Amino acid sequence: MEQVDIFIHAGTIITMNASFDLIQNGIIAIKGEKIVAVGAAADITKNYTASTTVDLSDQVIMPGMVNSHTHAPMTLLRGLNDDLRLDVWLGYLMPLEREFVNPEFVSLGATLACAEMIRSGVTTFADMYYYEPEIAKTTAEIGMRALLGQTVLMFPTPDSSSWEEGINYCREFLKQWNGHELIQPAVSPHAWYTATPELLRACSQLALEFDVPLHTHISETLLEVENCREQHDMSPVFWNQQHGILDTKLLAAHCCHIDRRDMRELKKHGAGIAHNPSSNLKLSSGIAPVPEMLDIGCNVGIGTDGPASNNDLDMFEEVRLAALLAKVVRNNPTDLPARQALELATMGGARAVHMADKIGSLEPGKLADLISLRLDGVHNWPHFNNNPDSIYSRLVYAAKSTDVQNVMVHGRWLMQDQTLQTVNEAEAIKQAVKVTAEIDAFVLKRESSPYNKLITLEAVAREEGYETQIKIPLQSPDKIVALLNSGEFDIRKKNRYRQFDTYFVFDDENPDAARLRFREDHYIDENDTVFQSRSRLTLLGVTHLEPLQNSVMLSRTRFMAPATRSLRFYQEYFIPDHTVEIEKLRHRWRINYQDADFAINIDQVIKPTMSGWFLEIKSRTWSHEDAVRKADLIGKLLAQFSVESEGAIRVEYIDLAERIYG
Amino acid sequence: MEQVDIFIHAGTIITMNASFDLIQNGIIAIKGEKIVAVGAAADITKNYTASTTVDLSDQVIMPGMVNSHTHAPMTLLRGLNDDLRLDVWLGYLMPLEREFVNPEFVSLGATLACAEMIRSGVTTFADMYYYEPEIAKTTAEIGMRALLGQTVLMFPTPDSSSWEEGINYCREFLKQWNGHELIQPAVSPHAWYTATPELLRACSQLALEFDVPLHTHISETLLEVENCREQHDMSPVFWNQQHGILDTKLLAAHCCHIDRRDMRELKKHGAGIAHNPSSNLKLSSGIAPVPEMLDIGCNVGIGTDGPASNNDLDMFEEVRLAALLAKVVRNNPTDLPARQALELATMGGARAVHMADKIGSLEPGKLADLISLRLDGVHNWPHFNNNPDSIYSRLVYAAKSTDVQNVMVHGRWLMQDQTLQTVNEAEAIKQAVKVTAEIDAFVLKRESSPYNKLITLEAVAREEGYETQIKIPLQSPDKIVALLNSGEFDIRKKNRYRQFDTYFVFDDENPDAARLRFREDHYIDENDTVFQSRSRLTLLGVTHLEPLQNSVMLSRTRFMAPATRSLRFYQEYFIPDHTVEIEKLRHRWRINYQDADFAINIDQVIKPTMSGWFLEIKSRTWSHEDAVRKADLIGKLLAQFSVESEGAIRVEYIDLAERIYG
Repeated sequence: MEQVDIFIHAGTIITMNASFDLIQNGIIAIKGEKIVAVGAAADITKNYTASTTVDLSDQVIMPGMVNSHTHAPMTLLRGLNDDLRLDVWLGYLMPLEREFVNPEFVSLGATLACAEMIRSGVTTFADMYYYEPEIAKTTAEIGMRALLGQTVLMFPTPDSSSWEEGINYCREFLKQWNGHELIQPAVSPHAWYTATPELLRACSQLALEFDVPLHTHISETLLEVENCREQHDMSPVFWNQQHGILDTKLLAAHCCHIDRRDMRELKKHGAGIAHNPSSNLKLSSGIAPVPEMLDIGCNVGIGTDGPASNNDLDMFEEVRLAALLAKVVRNNPTDLPARQALELATMGGARAVHMADKIGSLEPGKLADLISLRLDGVHNWPHFNNNPDSIYSRLVYAAKSTDVQNVMVHGRWLMQDQTLQTVNEAEAIKQAVKVTAEIDAFVLKRESSPYNKLITLEAVAREEGYETQIKIPLQSPDKIVALLNSGEFDIRKKNRYRQFDTYFVFDDENPDAARLRFREDHYIDENDTVFQSRSRLTLLGVTHLEPLQNSVMLSRTRFMAPATRSLRFYQEYFIPDHTVEIEKLRHRWRINYQDADFAINIDQVIKPTMSGWFLEIKSRTWSHEDAVRKADLIGKLLAQFSVESEGAIRVEYIDLAERIYG
Repeated sequence: MEQVDIFIHAGTIITMNASFDLIQNGIIAIKGEKIVAVGAAADITKNYTASTTVDLSDQVIMPGMVNSHTHAPMTLLRGLNDDLRLDVWLGYLMPLEREFVNPEFVSLGATLACAEMIRSGVTTFADMYYYEPEIAKTTAEIGMRALLGQTVLMFPTPDSSSWEEGINYCREFLKQWNGHELIQPAVSPHAWYTATPELLRACSQLALEFDVPLHTHISETLLEVENCREQHDMSPVFWNQQHGILDTKLLAAHCCHIDRRDMRELKKHGAGIAHNPSSNLKLSSGIAPVPEMLDIGCNVGIGTDGPASNNDLDMFEEVRLAALLAKVVRNNPTDLPARQALELATMGGARAVHMADKIGSLEPGKLADLISLRLDGVHNWPHFNNNPDSIYSRLVYAAKSTDVQNVMVHGRWLMQDQTLQTVNEAEAIKQAVKVTAEIDAFVLKRESSPYNKLITLEAVAREEGYETQIKIPLQSPDKIVALLNSGEFDIRKKNRYRQFDTYFVFDDENPDAARLRFREDHYIDENDTVFQSRSRLTLLGVTHLEPLQNSVMLSRTRFMAPATRSLRFYQEYFIPDHTVEIEKLRHRWRINYQDADFAINIDQVIKPTMSGWFLEIKSRTWSHEDAVRKADLIGKLLAQFSVESEGAIRVEYIDLAERIYG
């Protein structure tokens, strides 16, 4: 007779093992954090004794659900913005996150998320957010299991002002938490389209170095896939593959728009896919081809995505929707039947988050992560025995998260009789009320902000955050023009245009929206005839200026949008506090210089009148390090042009103009 | 000061009136079954006093949900068959329903359904099933509001052996219940494809006669629409319109595959549309174009469909799914925002079921059908005030049916603090256990039945239920053949073929599956050369024989399927108790005689050898009355052929053969 700690006596045990064994009147024997035996009560009691027996003989026991993709702290942003386009929604949320997301925020948000997930039968979740060390601390204390992906983005985030800083922050996170019994730290480049190639490669190398998973978004929308094919002549899966992402233990969220070749590539590399049906519908991302993924043999799990795009963390809703939605992918109602859908939420999820050896099924040797449910609510009657698999159908199509009674993770009860054991919900909600009030006040104020007005109008794209530049007054540009036209430089493009800028200046405290520029470029040919024009709106955040050798580095947010309406319209619409007009004649060369792109401008400022010419050398990048490297190259260029950097002007034209206008 | 019966004091009142008024700290004043006033607490208490005040100031009050399409008693069949094709599923369920559905069954099933619907905040539902008078009694006792459609089908149903009987049964139902304060009886032809044109017309006339709604399925699947266009050269909407269905107060369920012309036609006639997203996904029927319907101005409600195809009656799940799914119809995440989705489930539903003047919103003069919810669960935090409409987002995207606390219909509390007031759930479930056991036993037995085996193999179609026929031995066929070839008759088709029948006979008690016939027809030309052959399987139910003047009327179920495999395969697969072989040489004329189709066969039975010839005259129909009329026509035909009906044989060839084989 072997001694164990706990017998859980169940009406039915759904093992989700390879042969989908169902055990009526069964016992799960648990010692410490591990399952020692699972079987018929009579068999177990022959070989084991337990110090405690928990009687759940009127309930069904199954493995805990794996929520394979979420952004847990976003519980605190739930319902703030719904029924919006993805780009508008991101545009709305990201500045808010930069304002509010801090260690306390993520800890509180994760606490609320854990409470909700435990209540809905989740024992493991895969996260992607900021300040993951804080989320790790909170989650470990509450006692849930999690794969936590520290986000790395090419623009500044709440926890890192540049992506290199993000990589370092992530490395510290991995060092601190890798090997923890509940927390699996991971690297999370948000997505290929918010990453430079260097960032992607740094992330995959970091994940390989620590042998930890990498959690990223892939092929969420059709637009994303089309952009990738246009920019890189390959799908996002192959673009990621090219940067080493598929060589890691990859967890790819969404994959709504992957083709069979992508699927085979993901399968070949053992990648996990997190399918998020609610979010994909809510943001109109599309319907993921799950039946095909399964045919090909991909590792598919199910996720809720963040509560700001769902709007809850209810895995029962998610599994049901996954099963229903799969049936219209190929118009086949036999696709993703209930048993297989539940498999995706348990073992499938375990495979997707690279924990299949430890969780996902109730088998000897696995960790004791399990939940119990009552199936005797009036919404789940009657029960038929004609087909043993009908229990999966009851769980997937009729059960609700509120049917979950008990939840155990790592051998520890996190919920008993629907009472949470490790989370003080009332206290968390009390704190959330405070945070909400602050966000409310911020949002109400921002509703009238230029940025908010801009995103409701146009398709907005975010631009590179760092600009290295130098501006030097010239008596005559002739020497430089001659040099640029001499054939000595690798000229990629050459233009001459009149540039009419109207800056809308706002007395706004939002650092993302200090000025909005309406710019009209009139391209002129050799005969000074305008042959083409274009108009753009650019929202410029407050500029942070860092003086460098030979140049200056500007960092600021920049959002671009095509200007499809008149200047008069925008003036009336945005109601700036004041406007500044600048007119220039610009001669521009785009050159490639030692593998870096530079714009060389020779400008004459006509309005307000400034005498002489200006030489501008500029280059933009997402990387702080790259910006520093480019400052060095600017020095070399100035030497080639025989121009001294002493007279350099370290402000922008608008600042010069404001001085003139007074 | 006006005296009322009840004040309901609410934290927030969601009126769903035309201007979507939201009232914080409000009171609803109710007198008898009606809402007298709705407003801010301070205003109401100035003008009214109430004998009772119910304090729900920590809750949200909204109009009760309208479940605009269901088959309530099918709670008793929940989860019995999932993840099947629609035709297979119907083929599985319909025989089961004929076996089990009786007044007690529908009453118990409706009791369970009402309990579940009240719990999920439904106050009104639109039903379509059998024995609706029983459902009406049960529903009225429980106190829910309902539109109850008595089903009429062209084949025998649990409550009517022919469609004419069904119409009469329905007429009695309308007489008995029309004008009831809770129950709105209605006419329910199941669908155009299970109805003859006469049946459709009879239904629309009946609905117009009583001025009651008509509830039917329209354009649920693409196949249905294609079939209709092929058969009738128009869409199901227009085919229904042609038979008067759109002239009634129509409630059209599903409409997954209607085009803009259909939508405009439905709108023109003021029809209601019941959108059932869960069922439409689960059965792979498709995704209804709800955003377009709404653009055109159709009256759209939301329904759960029956619990056998959902598998629950949770309107919160349904509204959420409707809102999510609409966003991928046109790939627009701003389609069907939360407020509009909730409108469809309340006022929209009221319009769809033709009760918009009485229910659907909380306004003075409307009936007191309302629900209250707590929105303070951890899954529904935090709350933001930045946008007043965010309450709709909380209700649609995050709330659960289990958040519903109180339900009132017609001024009467049906649930208080989550305790049902008018349904004994425990007793209903106890009874359901008994019924379940019986269904289980039946199904387990039938699993091995020929019918069940057939439907898992082939595309099965049900055929006409009534056959009027006469069979008369002839010494010589010459005179009749000469007459048929004389040009006197309207011959539509003429064939000669050898017919090889193998009957599989089962000692089975299932009246739907007594014999399975494997039939091979070898068509022969003038030179007795076979130029074509075909094989079919026909499953024949037990034959009920009704002797008529000059003929006999057979009624039985018949399911046809193409035989795509060998006789040997079917023999091994179906394992009949014994087989009977019959071989005939058949000469067949199909004629049109006084607007009725008849088959005239001159048969020589070769195996087992029978001497002489047989004259057979046959015609099939869905209508009992039509079968009787045809018996009369057979008499006239026999007179024209100068054949006496005295020697008529009133059994089938297989019965003759069984006598010979012994």
